[in-house]
Amino acid sequence: MNDAHYKTERPLANGQTRIDFQTAPGRYRHWKLAIDGDVATLFLDVDEKGALFEGYDLKLNSFDLGVDIELADAIERLRFEHPEVRVLVLRSGKPRVFCAGANIRMLAGASHAHKVNFCKFTNETRNGIEDLSENSGLKTVCAISGTAAGGGYELALAADHIMLVDDGSSAVALPELPLLAVLPGTGGVTRVADKRKVRRDYADVFCTTEEGVKGKRAVEWRLVDEVVPGSKFDETIAARAKEFAAKSGRGAAGRGITLVPLARSFTADGVEYGSLAVAFERAGRIATVTLRGPAVSPPASVEAMAALGAEFWPLKLARELDDAILNIRLNEFDVAAIVFKSSGDPAEVMAYEHFLDANKDHWLVREIRHLWKRVLKRIDLTSRSLVTLLEPGSCFVGTLAEISFASDRSYMLIGARGGDNKPPATMALADANFGAYPMSNGLTRLASRFLASPADLAAAKAEHEKTLDAETAQRLGLVTFALDDIDWDDEVRVFLEERASFSPDSLTGLEANLRFAGPETMESKIFARLSAWQNWIFQRPNAVGEDGALKRYGTGQKPVFDTKRV
Amino acid sequence: MNDAHYKTERPLANGQTRIDFQTAPGRYRHWKLAIDGDVATLFLDVDEKGALFEGYDLKLNSFDLGVDIELADAIERLRFEHPEVRVLVLRSGKPRVFCAGANIRMLAGASHAHKVNFCKFTNETRNGIEDLSENSGLKTVCAISGTAAGGGYELALAADHIMLVDDGSSAVALPELPLLAVLPGTGGVTRVADKRKVRRDYADVFCTTEEGVKGKRAVEWRLVDEVVPGSKFDETIAARAKEFAAKSGRGAAGRGITLVPLARSFTADGVEYGSLAVAFERAGRIATVTLRGPAVSPPASVEAMAALGAEFWPLKLARELDDAILNIRLNEFDVAAIVFKSSGDPAEVMAYEHFLDANKDHWLVREIRHLWKRVLKRIDLTSRSLVTLLEPGSCFVGTLAEISFASDRSYMLIGARGGDNKPPATMALADANFGAYPMSNGLTRLASRFLASPADLAAAKAEHEKTLDAETAQRLGLVTFALDDIDWDDEVRVFLEERASFSPDSLTGLEANLRFAGPETMESKIFARLSAWQNWIFQRPNAVGEDGALKRYGTGQKPVFDTKRV
Repeated sequence: MNDAHYKTERPLANGQTRIDFQTAPGRYRHWKLAIDGDVATLFLDVDEKGALFEGYDLKLNSFDLGVDIELADAIERLRFEHPEVRVLVLRSGKPRVFCAGANIRMLAGASHAHKVNFCKFTNETRNGIEDLSENSGLKTVCAISGTAAGGGYELALAADHIMLVDDGSSAVALPELPLLAVLPGTGGVTRVADKRKVRRDYADVFCTTEEGVKGKRAVEWRLVDEVVPGSKFDETIAARAKEFAAKSGRGAAGRGITLVPLARSFTADGVEYGSLAVAFERAGRIATVTLRGPAVSPPASVEAMAALGAEFWPLKLARELDDAILNIRLNEFDVAAIVFKSSGDPAEVMAYEHFLDANKDHWLVREIRHLWKRVLKRIDLTSRSLVTLLEPGSCFVGTLAEISFASDRSYMLIGARGGDNKPPATMALADANFGAYPMSNGLTRLASRFLASPADLAAAKAEHEKTLDAETAQRLGLVTFALDDIDWDDEVRVFLEERASFSPDSLTGLEANLRFAGPETMESKIFARLSAWQNWIFQRPNAVGEDGALKRYGTGQKPVFDTKRV
Repeated sequence: MNDAHYKTERPLANGQTRIDFQTAPGRYRHWKLAIDGDVATLFLDVDEKGALFEGYDLKLNSFDLGVDIELADAIERLRFEHPEVRVLVLRSGKPRVFCAGANIRMLAGASHAHKVNFCKFTNETRNGIEDLSENSGLKTVCAISGTAAGGGYELALAADHIMLVDDGSSAVALPELPLLAVLPGTGGVTRVADKRKVRRDYADVFCTTEEGVKGKRAVEWRLVDEVVPGSKFDETIAARAKEFAAKSGRGAAGRGITLVPLARSFTADGVEYGSLAVAFERAGRIATVTLRGPAVSPPASVEAMAALGAEFWPLKLARELDDAILNIRLNEFDVAAIVFKSSGDPAEVMAYEHFLDANKDHWLVREIRHLWKRVLKRIDLTSRSLVTLLEPGSCFVGTLAEISFASDRSYMLIGARGGDNKPPATMALADANFGAYPMSNGLTRLASRFLASPADLAAAKAEHEKTLDAETAQRLGLVTFALDDIDWDDEVRVFLEERASFSPDSLTGLEANLRFAGPETMESKIFARLSAWQNWIFQRPNAVGEDGALKRYGTGQKPVFDTKRV
C-alpha cells in the first residue's frame, strides 16, 4: 500500500495517511452496541484518547469524524445484520454527560475543507437515522441524562422521541453561537425550526443561551418530548422502547446478513474494489470511477440472495461505491471532477433490476434499495463536478443509469469506437428510475430533470425497459450530448480541462444550486440553507481568524469581532 | 445635516457620505421612462460617469446600486403614479448591448458587506417586478438586443416574457463563474432552475459558457421565450406589449397619485421622518425605530384617500419605514439590533385597518397593502437582530403588529410603568394579519409562528379585533415575554447587550435559518440557498483574494486558485 498521495490535512492519530470509513463493532472505540431482542441500545462512551487526528482529546463525550464513522457503521449493521431490531435507544455510557457535541479543538484546528465535509457526513448519518425510522420502521428513542450540547443535541434531534432526565441539571443546548460564533451545523437549527417546529422566538432564545434549557420548559418549548425523574429513567426508557417497538413495522423478517469487510487495495493512483475501480489522474484532477456489471446472473431465489449476503452484486457495488465516494470527499480534496464509467453486459444489469423488482417486498431487497438511495444522495451532495461517460461496453441500466442522472452532465458515444470491438453504448430505464430513489428534494432524478415538462418524463417512461442508443437517449433528454467518435475525445478532454480550470468554490456553489430544482424538504434545507450559511461562517474571521471565537476558545481570552453586520 | 456617522465603505462619487435610496424620474441618470397609453418602456442607458462610488466607470450598461435604486424607484412609480399601465417593456437605450450586469470593478472594490447588501437589494427589486406581474397584473416584457450578461440576464429573468434578437451575436449569458469565479448572485441560477426550469445539464453548460447562448438554442434550452429577426424587433415588441396588455388585469383604475419626496432630516444620531423616527445608540450598536400612529382619523372615502395621496398615513409610514430600513442596511453596518417601538392610539390604527379592509378592492388600497407586504419582507430579510418592545402608549395593531411577528423576539410590558401615565401596552390583530402579508416562504407570519399547532393559530384568530393585554398576548403566543415594570429594564438591556456581544456573522446565519420555517418558494430559495452560497464565495480567496478572479479581472493576469474542492 502506497499512501503517498493521500494527504490529510493534519496528522491522523493512527499513523495512517488516509481517513478510513470502514470499521466494525469489534473495533469500535466510542460506541457500544447492545442488542436485547427487538431493542438495540447504542451507548456513546467516547474514548478520550481515540481522536481521529493528533492534537486533541475527545473530552466529555465530544466527537470527531472518527466517532461518527462508527455511528454510521452501527446504523448500517442494524439495517442489514439485525432485521429483528425494532427500536434503537441512544444513550450515554458516561455519567452526567450525554454528549458535548463536535470537539471544539478538532474544529479549531481543522481545515475548512475538512470541517465542511465532516459536517456533511454527520448530517448524512443523522438523515440516515430518520430514514431508518421512516422507511424501514426502526424507531429511535434518545434518552438524555446529563447535557446534550451542540452536536449532542443535534444527534438527539434525529430521534423519533427525546427523553430528558429532570434532575435540575440535565439540559439540551445549542451553545455554538454564544460559545463559538458558529452555527449548530449538523441540522440543529433546521430540525428545531422544521421538525420540532419550535416557535421562532423561543428558538432564538434557545440558540443564544449557552447553558440551554432543562426541565418542563424544554417540553413546553417542544425541544424534548418528555422529562423523566432520574429515579424512573431506566424503567421509562424500557417502557418507551416497548411502545415504539409496537409502532414499528419492522422485525420478524428473517436472519440478517453479515456486512463483511470490503476488500480494497489502495495504490498511489487508485483504489481497486471488487465491483468497481477508482483511478486518479492527478495532473488533470480527475477521479474516474468505473463500475463493473455483475459477473454472474441474479440468484434463483431470495434465499439464494440471502446466502450470498454482502457478496450479492447490487449490495456489494453500493457499499463499495459509497466507500469510494467518501474516500474522494475526505481524502482527495484536489479532485475537481468525478468521471463515472461502467463496463458490463446491460442485459445482466437489467436482469438484476428485474430480480429486485420481483422481490421488492423482501426486507433485504428493501434495504438494498434504500442503501442505493442513500449512496445516490451522497453522490448528489458531493461537491465535485460529476460527469458520466456512456461509452461502448458500458452498462448504464436502471440503478446505474441513475448515476448518470445524478451527474452534472453526461456524454454518450454514438456507435462503435474505431479499432474497438465493444458494443455501442446503450442506456435502459427500469422501474427503479421512477420512484425507488428520490433525491433530497423528494423528487426522482428524472422528475427533477424534466421539471419543465411532465410530457418528457412520460415519454421517457414509455421507453422504459427498452435498449436506447445514444441518439435516442439524447432525443429523450436522458443524456446531455451524444457525440460520435470523431468529436468524443476532444469534447470530453476540453470539458474536463475547463472544469479543472474554474474556481472550485464557484463550482461548489453552482452545482449546489443547479442540482436541486423544485421543492425543498427539511433534508434539502439542511444541505442548502443551513450548510451554506455555516460554510460562510466557517470562513469568517469572527469564527476562524486568529482572534476569532474558535481559535480563542479555552484560552481565557475573549474573541475579538468585526462588528459589521453583513 | 451632520453626516459624520454615516460611513460608507469607500467615497461616494457624489460627495455625500450616505447612500440615498430616494430619487425621482427627473433625476435619473441611467434609465429613461417613457409611457405611451398602457405601455411603459424603461430604457437602460447607463451614464458611464454616473457611478455610485469613485473609482470605476459604468461601461457597457453595467450597473451598481445607484442604477438599481433608480430601477426600484421607477417600478414603485409605475405602481402608484401610473395605474393605467398594463405592460412594462425593458430594453436597452444603447446599441449592441443590453446590459453587462453588475460592474466588475465595483464588485472588486466593494466591501463584503456592501456586496452582500447590494445583491439583496437587487434581488428585492427583481422580486418586486415579479410581484407586480403576479399581484398587480402589470406584465413585463424584456426585449434583448445585444448581449444580456450576468445581472443583465438576471434582470431579464424577472420578466414574464424574454425576447432575443436573432442577429448572430445577441446572446444571453451568465459568465460569472468562468469570468469572475463567483455565482450569478441576483437570482440567476435559481430562476434558471426553478422559474425557467432549464434542464440541469443544459443549465450547467450555460452557466459555465462565458459567451452565453444565442439564437434557436436559447429557445430550445428555455433561456428565452422567442428569438426575433432584427428587422422585426420593434414591431414584435409592440405586438407582444399588446398581447400582454390584453392579459393584464390592470388599468382603467383611476388616476395615479404622486410619490412626493420623503421629508427627512438626518442628524448625527438619528433620522426624523414624519411618521417615524430612527435613533442610533452607537455605543450599544442599537437603532431604535419608533413608528407613530396616525395623527388624524381615516378619510371619509377612497376619493378623500386618493386626494391625500402619499400623505395618507399607511402609505406614508410604509415608504418611510422602507427608507429607514434601507438606510440602516447599507449605511449603518455597525448596528447589531433594530428595536421597533410605536406610539399612538391603538383604536385609530385599527380604524385605518378597517378603512383599508372596507376598500380592499380599490387599486390604491391594494397597492398600499402590497407595499407593506414588500416592506415587511424587507424587514424579514434584514440581517440585524430584530426586537419589538411593546410598551405603554404603543399601538401595535394589525399591520404594525406584523412588525412584531417579523422580529426575532418581542417583549411586552405588563400594566403601566411607574411614574408614567401612558396607557398599558396592548396588541390587537386585524384581518391583515391573516393573509395580506405573506412572507417569502408563502405563509403569513402567524402561520409560520404557529407551524407546530394550527390550533394556536385558530386561537389567535378567535381573538382578532380584541384588545389584548400583555398577559393575554403572551398566553396566545403572540409575544415572547411579558414582563412587569420591575424586570423590564434589566431584561431588555441584558438582551441588547448580549446581542451586541455575539459574532455578527453567526447571528446572520442563525436568523436566516430561524426566520423562515416551513415551505420554500423560489423567492426564499434565492435568499437562502443562492445568497448563502454566493456570500460564501464572496469570502473565498479564489474570488476576492489578491490573486483571485475578481481582483485580477482585466489585469491580463490569470487568477490563481486554491484547487481544493470544499
